[in-house]
Amino acid sequence: PQARAQAPEPQKAAEPPVVQVSEEGFSLSSADKAFVLKLRGQLQGDGRFFLDDTDRTGTNTFVMRRVRPILDGTLFGFIDFRLMPDFGNGQPLIQDAYIDFRPGEWVRLRAGRFKTPFGLELLQSDMDNPFIERSLTVDLVPNRDEGLELHGEGEGGRWQYSLAVVNGDPDGASTDFNTDDSFDLVARVFALPFKGREPSFLQGLGLGIAATRGLQFGTATNTGLAPFRSTGQLVIFSYLSNADTGAVVTAHGQHLRLAPQGHFYWGSFGLLAEYVRSSQEVQIGDARARLRHHAWQTAVSWVFGGKASFEGARPTKPFDPKTLEGGALEVAARYHALDLDDAAFPRFANPARSVRGAKGFGVATTFAFNRRVRFALNFHRTNFEGGATDGDRAPENVLMSRFQLTF
Amino acid sequence: PQARAQAPEPQKAAEPPVVQVSEEGFSLSSADKAFVLKLRGQLQGDGRFFLDDTDRTGTNTFVMRRVRPILDGTLFGFIDFRLMPDFGNGQPLIQDAYIDFRPGEWVRLRAGRFKTPFGLELLQSDMDNPFIERSLTVDLVPNRDEGLELHGEGEGGRWQYSLAVVNGDPDGASTDFNTDDSFDLVARVFALPFKGREPSFLQGLGLGIAATRGLQFGTATNTGLAPFRSTGQLVIFSYLSNADTGAVVTAHGQHLRLAPQGHFYWGSFGLLAEYVRSSQEVQIGDARARLRHHAWQTAVSWVFGGKASFEGARPTKPFDPKTLEGGALEVAARYHALDLDDAAFPRFANPARSVRGAKGFGVATTFAFNRRVRFALNFHRTNFEGGATDGDRAPENVLMSRFQLTF
Amino acid sequence: PQARAQAPEPQKAAEPPVVQVSEEGFSLSSADKAFVLKLRGQLQGDGRFFLDDTDRTGTNTFVMRRVRPILDGTLFGFIDFRLMPDFGNGQPLIQDAYIDFRPGEWVRLRAGRFKTPFGLELLQSDMDNPFIERSLTVDLVPNRDEGLELHGEGEGGRWQYSLAVVNGDPDGASTDFNTDDSFDLVARVFALPFKGREPSFLQGLGLGIAATRGLQFGTATNTGLAPFRSTGQLVIFSYLSNADTGAVVTAHGQHLRLAPQGHFYWGSFGLLAEYVRSSQEVQIGDARARLRHHAWQTAVSWVFGGKASFEGARPTKPFDPKTLEGGALEVAARYHALDLDDAAFPRFANPARSVRGAKGFGVATTFAFNRRVRFALNFHRTNFEGGATDGDRAPENVLMSRFQLTF
Repeated sequence: PQARAQAPEPQKAAEPPVVQVSEEGFSLSSADKAFVLKLRGQLQGDGRFFLDDTDRTGTNTFVMRRVRPILDGTLFGFIDFRLMPDFGNGQPLIQDAYIDFRPGEWVRLRAGRFKTPFGLELLQSDMDNPFIERSLTVDLVPNRDEGLELHGEGEGGRWQYSLAVVNGDPDGASTDFNTDDSFDLVARVFALPFKGREPSFLQGLGLGIAATRGLQFGTATNTGLAPFRSTGQLVIFSYLSNADTGAVVTAHGQHLRLAPQGHFYWGSFGLLAEYVRSSQEVQIGDARARLRHHAWQTAVSWVFGGKASFEGARPTKPFDPKTLEGGALEVAARYHALDLDDAAFPRFANPARSVRGAKGFGVATTFAFNRRVRFALNFHRTNFEGGATDGDRAPENVLMSRFQLTF
Repeated sequence: PQARAQAPEPQKAAEPPVVQVSEEGFSLSSADKAFVLKLRGQLQGDGRFFLDDTDRTGTNTFVMRRVRPILDGTLFGFIDFRLMPDFGNGQPLIQDAYIDFRPGEWVRLRAGRFKTPFGLELLQSDMDNPFIERSLTVDLVPNRDEGLELHGEGEGGRWQYSLAVVNGDPDGASTDFNTDDSFDLVARVFALPFKGREPSFLQGLGLGIAATRGLQFGTATNTGLAPFRSTGQLVIFSYLSNADTGAVVTAHGQHLRLAPQGHFYWGSFGLLAEYVRSSQEVQIGDARARLRHHAWQTAVSWVFGGKASFEGARPTKPFDPKTLEGGALEVAARYHALDLDDAAFPRFANPARSVRGAKGFGVATTFAFNRRVRFALNFHRTNFEGGATDGDRAPENVLMSRFQLTF
Repeated sequence: PQARAQAPEPQKAAEPPVVQVSEEGFSLSSADKAFVLKLRGQLQGDGRFFLDDTDRTGTNTFVMRRVRPILDGTLFGFIDFRLMPDFGNGQPLIQDAYIDFRPGEWVRLRAGRFKTPFGLELLQSDMDNPFIERSLTVDLVPNRDEGLELHGEGEGGRWQYSLAVVNGDPDGASTDFNTDDSFDLVARVFALPFKGREPSFLQGLGLGIAATRGLQFGTATNTGLAPFRSTGQLVIFSYLSNADTGAVVTAHGQHLRLAPQGHFYWGSFGLLAEYVRSSQEVQIGDARARLRHHAWQTAVSWVFGGKASFEGARPTKPFDPKTLEGGALEVAARYHALDLDDAAFPRFANPARSVRGAKGFGVATTFAFNRRVRFALNFHRTNFEGGATDGDRAPENVLMSRFQLTF
């Protein structure tokens, strides 16, 4: 006890902060990790090339898809935060901005703006998805929203849950404000029942289900509805909107969504599948209807020279430009479909311009130089039902490239 | 040469930079503090819930009120700078961006974009205000502006002064460019006469006065006038603007403002009071008038478990999630009023849509987990004069919540 | 030494990161420099004062010209990146966002958004230009664009080359997306033949040439053409655009540019000269034409108390506010001209509102407190041909001020 009295306090106070500069990232943290600041970023420089589009529906272009400086951190050991603006698509905005109170792993309270805890593919970081653009299911999935989320996990990540109350996004969109007085409830459970258990080949099996429920009422200027897009990011469906006549379709009543979802990773192999159903009451003039849209996708991938995971392909060793060795090659294929309610036509959407359905097939190759930098090349073909004056909208054939860096 | 070989120069050069990671913030600085970079941020995730509004004037919503990454620093020991973007309200913009030349405490020259040195409540950081939204006085107070500011303080902060030349903001707004050829002059003095002196209970007494003077001439597209908002952030007064007929009220002539202001902090007790008068010449068609608007507020607060100050409530000790001890609870009440010139109606504003006056009362409770993270719950009621076709606009009753983090 | 031989691995792993905090900037890097993160920023607070403009064409204003937080870095020793948003001009956007693969000095591949490698003055950082605004030549020069660039240098920088494929900017503008299906090719070579050689006074001589070639097709909403601006940043030429009648001039066909360019720096003396020619096919209704525009500039500068260079004036020693010694004063003069194709009038541009030509002369003084902070005062006069109902647009006389900080 005497020796203790003589010294330790000053030494403890002098324990210097830790500066991390490595493949793991750039960060400053106190010696006890109670205070942490991570300086991160994401950058995606894409090319989109529409093949065989004699009608020039799509425009070939280079585009900055995501440009995101990120501040992640921890204060006082139990409060995490994230600030993530995005300057991609020529449209600056905030993506994530939240505080996470973390009294324990099994219960956290998140407040701010964050991804609605609903769709599996959307919850996977776009940096880790084997495909350059997400599947058609995200047309029915809520993206970022503001509100509160109670979430947590247990048994080393064997189960996860989320309960959220949020403003309520239109399908396939993000919003900054609520358009009506009511909020959406969101619930999601996901389990990896074999994580850390035998048989080991089932460790990467994850299954879950998510649902949202809310009332949404739009106005002529803020309809509470968003257009749907193809893999090539072209609008393929939009609700009728005639500002001159005042005839605008608005969300008007209950909005329900359901999404069973799952993934399976084993060594170099990966599989992700999801089904989404969205049911929304809409109105135009005196006409009302409950429209039921569906979408689903299945994607498989294989990583040469590394391992597949929900957190992205991990090369066994990083690419070395001197020896030209290392890196990993991920190849993936996906089939996905979007099926829109026939009752939407022609009262709520123009059948000559909006499609009734879309079915797409895509193949992707990604060279991961290392965990931080990738080059990807994708080809996606989508066939449409309806959406043209003379029947079906012409199929979309799009070649995509991406240079991606995260730190 | 020998003496040189013996020592001090190389050692000095080798003195390593200082990395700070703590409750005080995250920063890098040279050993002599001549070069400093602070990585900071502010985040406010709010909820607004309008009670008893059968006419649905206000929309209940979650909203990111402020999302601000901040770079603060010092170069060469006498030049400070700040870059503070804001991604709040779904509207990215720059708030502060300035250089401060600091030859001494008593004289500094600031160039760039900064808060106009006028209103006391506005000059207090919104992070430190006991209320979630500022009072009705800020409807008459200029916010951020571009220009030059000579400022300084003396006798350990016992007196402060500011002299600025800026583009000239409309009341209650910020601008990026000047709308006319003339600039506004701003002057402010503030004294804490008993700071560091006896009697000690008067140490937190501060009194000051500020004024602005300028000419403002608007155009049909850039009127030089801004709407006024309620505590619930709804527009309650706007100048007439009919783009079709070309009948638009514009600023047209002299703009004067005056604001006596003061605060008093003693232990756990805080008081802040301010009066603002704005006089602006306006024009529509051939009609001109000088409109005189007034506003004032008084706010009192008490901090349980900490001390009150202009720099926000400081908990005696931070909240510990294991023991559930620590943190501070601040309770506050405010009475405030906005009185608009009767001469504005009906020629310059529509009496059926714009109010003649507003009087508000609000109570606030804030739990400060520590100096960096807070949760607040407010209730504000505001009564209006005029502003409706049938007399008075319905009172506003708004419940507000806020999760706030600064680092 | 034996003990040391037994255990080197742990020691190597423990080699700590390097934190730099100095005049050179703020950065974190791994001991082997394979991972680097630089935290940088640029800030320009300007004033513009139009003299002798009885018709009030220009508005006197303070304006934040550039407000740019910057993240620069390196990953795995051969991949560089930059993220540079800009909050200047009241318009947040992304300027630079790219990845640079660097297998060697003589060949690098850049992907993302970057300055089109074409104009010499535009490729010089605006922070280093002796003038507050660039010359009239930049009206014909492409600014930022998205795409791929192969670039490199050899013999210690004696020669540089760039080959790029990009979306294709209109003259004098930046774009976020392509407006048509075709891309622009850009090539540039630049040589400093005497760099590191005798005679030493020719070391700062650089000569080069650049060209762009592409097809550009605009639409009524996205014309593929941009207005041209004076030194005072006022629009002096714009293509006809009548949204009501649908009569809009659009880019329609080949777009070629050529720019011989050079500079010469010797001690305190600097000279920069550039000629730009742009030839663009345009269309309105049934009328088509190939318009050929020209511009050129010559600028000379002298640095008192420092050295001139393409990377900006470098003070011999930094200004010390205590002794009032140090710093450098740069004085510069510039003559520049813009000559627009006569065939543009009146079918493609209104001769009563758009000028046929502009000739400007300007003088600049800049006090560089040190390498990071400057104050500049400029006067620019520009005479115009045409552009008014009664003949020539009134000459522009603009006094400009700038406070600038980079870190």
